[in-house]
Amino acid sequence: MNDKISDNKKEIGITVKKEEDFSDWFSQIVEKSGLADYISAKGFIVLKPYGYAIWESIRGFLDKKLKDAGHSNGFLPCLIPESILNKEEDHFKGFNPEVFWVTHSGENKLNEKLALRPTSEALLYSIFPKWISSYRDLPLKINFWNTALRAEIKSTKPFIRNSEFLWQEGHTVHSSRNEAEDQVMMVLDIYKNLIENVLSIPTITGFKSNKEKFVGAEYTTTLEGMMPDGKALQLGTSHNLGRNFSKPFDIKFLNKENNEEFAWQTSWGTSWRLIGALIMVHGDDKGLILPPLIAPIQIIIIPIYKNNNEKAVKESANLLKDNLLESGYRVFVDERNGYTAGWKYNEWEVKGVPIRISVGPRDIEKKTIEIVRRDNKHKQVIPLEQLNENMEKIFNSIQNDLFNNAEKYLKEKTKRASNYKDLKKMIDNSEGFVLAAWCGKDECELKVKEETGADIRVIPFGQEGKSNGDLKNCIYCNQSSEKIVVFARAY
Amino acid sequence: MNDKISDNKKEIGITVKKEEDFSDWFSQIVEKSGLADYISAKGFIVLKPYGYAIWESIRGFLDKKLKDAGHSNGFLPCLIPESILNKEEDHFKGFNPEVFWVTHSGENKLNEKLALRPTSEALLYSIFPKWISSYRDLPLKINFWNTALRAEIKSTKPFIRNSEFLWQEGHTVHSSRNEAEDQVMMVLDIYKNLIENVLSIPTITGFKSNKEKFVGAEYTTTLEGMMPDGKALQLGTSHNLGRNFSKPFDIKFLNKENNEEFAWQTSWGTSWRLIGALIMVHGDDKGLILPPLIAPIQIIIIPIYKNNNEKAVKESANLLKDNLLESGYRVFVDERNGYTAGWKYNEWEVKGVPIRISVGPRDIEKKTIEIVRRDNKHKQVIPLEQLNENMEKIFNSIQNDLFNNAEKYLKEKTKRASNYKDLKKMIDNSEGFVLAAWCGKDECELKVKEETGADIRVIPFGQEGKSNGDLKNCIYCNQSSEKIVVFARAY
Repeated sequence: MNDKISDNKKEIGITVKKEEDFSDWFSQIVEKSGLADYISAKGFIVLKPYGYAIWESIRGFLDKKLKDAGHSNGFLPCLIPESILNKEEDHFKGFNPEVFWVTHSGENKLNEKLALRPTSEALLYSIFPKWISSYRDLPLKINFWNTALRAEIKSTKPFIRNSEFLWQEGHTVHSSRNEAEDQVMMVLDIYKNLIENVLSIPTITGFKSNKEKFVGAEYTTTLEGMMPDGKALQLGTSHNLGRNFSKPFDIKFLNKENNEEFAWQTSWGTSWRLIGALIMVHGDDKGLILPPLIAPIQIIIIPIYKNNNEKAVKESANLLKDNLLESGYRVFVDERNGYTAGWKYNEWEVKGVPIRISVGPRDIEKKTIEIVRRDNKHKQVIPLEQLNENMEKIFNSIQNDLFNNAEKYLKEKTKRASNYKDLKKMIDNSEGFVLAAWCGKDECELKVKEETGADIRVIPFGQEGKSNGDLKNCIYCNQSSEKIVVFARAY
Repeated sequence: MNDKISDNKKEIGITVKKEEDFSDWFSQIVEKSGLADYISAKGFIVLKPYGYAIWESIRGFLDKKLKDAGHSNGFLPCLIPESILNKEEDHFKGFNPEVFWVTHSGENKLNEKLALRPTSEALLYSIFPKWISSYRDLPLKINFWNTALRAEIKSTKPFIRNSEFLWQEGHTVHSSRNEAEDQVMMVLDIYKNLIENVLSIPTITGFKSNKEKFVGAEYTTTLEGMMPDGKALQLGTSHNLGRNFSKPFDIKFLNKENNEEFAWQTSWGTSWRLIGALIMVHGDDKGLILPPLIAPIQIIIIPIYKNNNEKAVKESANLLKDNLLESGYRVFVDERNGYTAGWKYNEWEVKGVPIRISVGPRDIEKKTIEIVRRDNKHKQVIPLEQLNENMEKIFNSIQNDLFNNAEKYLKEKTKRASNYKDLKKMIDNSEGFVLAAWCGKDECELKVKEETGADIRVIPFGQEGKSNGDLKNCIYCNQSSEKIVVFARAY
């Protein structure tokens, strides 16, 4: 890690409590843990090394899973000629208000305006007809690690709402509807595994409503997380595009019977919002708390010494580091002079490193080490020789504890509303997610949104054949309904 | 690898000889080996999975070397407010003609124009004052894997001259001139190691002339390669920025004596031009030839079977694959039905896979395998049990042979000119690099460029204290000179 701390320029600790001012707390974490910084243009951020290292960690995990499942990466330009973006009209209209337009190069006006990629469906699909002609060319499964640009004119927030954000966008083409449907669910599962088992953030998975689905999709599936202010954060989406794009873009293939058919497509993405979710869900008054599987530094070793034993203590600390490195842990020794141990403790707490080990002359003598967990502050002293076996247990325990705490919170803050008055009150009081019945009509959804500020975030999977209990009639129009949905305000 | 071949859409082999039409040959390789494709906007390309996998290979190698040397990665927005780009006037002027300008978001005109990043010095250095205050914050060493955008209005060429290109840009800040100078050379060494030992492309390293250096730099060091048409290709540059940026951007630090000083800076980059160089330097009439260290697929296994032995042959092929995978090789079995072995041979030759192994019933019976090298077509049959030890030797031999062939060519096509008439003739005949003496004046360099089309590509390192032989006086003005330089036309 390369981002140094200037002791005379900033106060290192977080000076506001998470419960008291959630928004200021979030900003302070972003700045003081060295994740990101701002530029003068509104809505754009820079990732500092520590922030980018978390993204590299997330990317590394997801990239491997996607490759194992047969996807390859590619590269697309960030500029899209207007005529291409125009081909699928609804899609274009959906993004139009937030598109950045390039109109000039140097002093010269361009013949055709170029849009900065809000997403790449149109550009990529304009090329697919050159790549696909027979069923043998399918499935085609390609992914892009890039950025998307969407002009944010409303309030912006690092990692949550930015005019340019890091993400991945995957695109697949299939010879049958079934295969495309399976693909949509497979990717959602990969996301769920990443978010729940690696980032320790529980999610509710299901469909988006018609109003909230991706523009141009047949349907959208989503993973929704709950933030500590009760608001929902969409953590990833996977779309079945049906043949809505293959028709306007003329993506056809010869099937086994030698007949031409339009292809079936999917697209899906997740972004650095996951870092925003990590901060909000796990962080505490002291700073960031990172799950070990994703932490750029999993273990920070602080040597504690005076002048007369500095050399011996630093040597022991580095021996310990080598031992842990060899076992595959990401570990760092903070050997900087001119800072007290207490100051270093604070700094690494702000940065959310899961485990802190202090090494002092006493520990060396007794052949023990002191381990402190960042998440629950538990301290334990263990014999040096038992370090490795303990470390794995502790890491598993941190992963599970973080997930379980977040899941407990999600459950507590998920209420059921059987009438509109209750729903309104729950939303107004920021009580979290509200389960309610919905008839399926856009107009009821719109009315609830207008009157309460809450969207339908997700229509959870797995409702088929289950009793809806007291939630039988649409929360707004009171007509009979088969679906229970999650209403919530959202980022 | 996910990019499939449509047998009814394209002719798979290269239909022109490298020596006959180098430019068409290059385009055919790019297309037929599945590296890249075009979009409708001039100068932009898409990387298909095979092309991007080569970039991932290059990035993986370089990223590790840079991290080992203490650099961390970060992220910067691709849009730069005009006022920031304006701060270092010379720098801005240098890029101005090729800057893409964003003027609108949606229907709204922006208050301030935003430039698409031609390079990130100005943006990043406008933030550095927030990150740096004391000598303790230095050195700061950060790198970005992103794209640069420079509107190409002249002739464009995939990987060589594009309006958007993948690259890495590194930036460092130091507390002394010496440290910055060492950094410039260290990065140049890392590049040289990548290009010569991994990509097997020989380079000439040295300084750029004043006219050719990076706008805003104190001096620029470069690695120049020679392409088969005798033209030079710049493969990477590393700049000492001195305090040319720290002064306008106010990047200061408190030194150990508690006095404020302006910082010393470097920046450096290399790009997907390296892929262009790989194609040009190593490719032959059959297609691409990739050095094993960088090849996404190092070994292609082709099972040869008839209906009655298909199962047994495929099993053997996959056993072999597992064995090679376990030894760490990147290997792929081409099990596709409906294609002849000959057709598959052609396809993998076009793609430049270093080693082809055929597995047939005879090989299984005799416990031997047939290995064919892509670079020199040598075929050898070896006992199965000696496969692993042989493979490493063959890979080393391919790496060396590719480098030695290219180096032999570079030497043959590097001539000495002791008078201007000779230089002109050599350049006119595309004889390659021309070594000549130069007095150091811009005007002589400019005149040569105007009259011959040749630039000073590089002022080679290591001339101090060496005799210049017959090259004593400036090739243009005939005044006495101490420097020998390389003149050549360039991409």
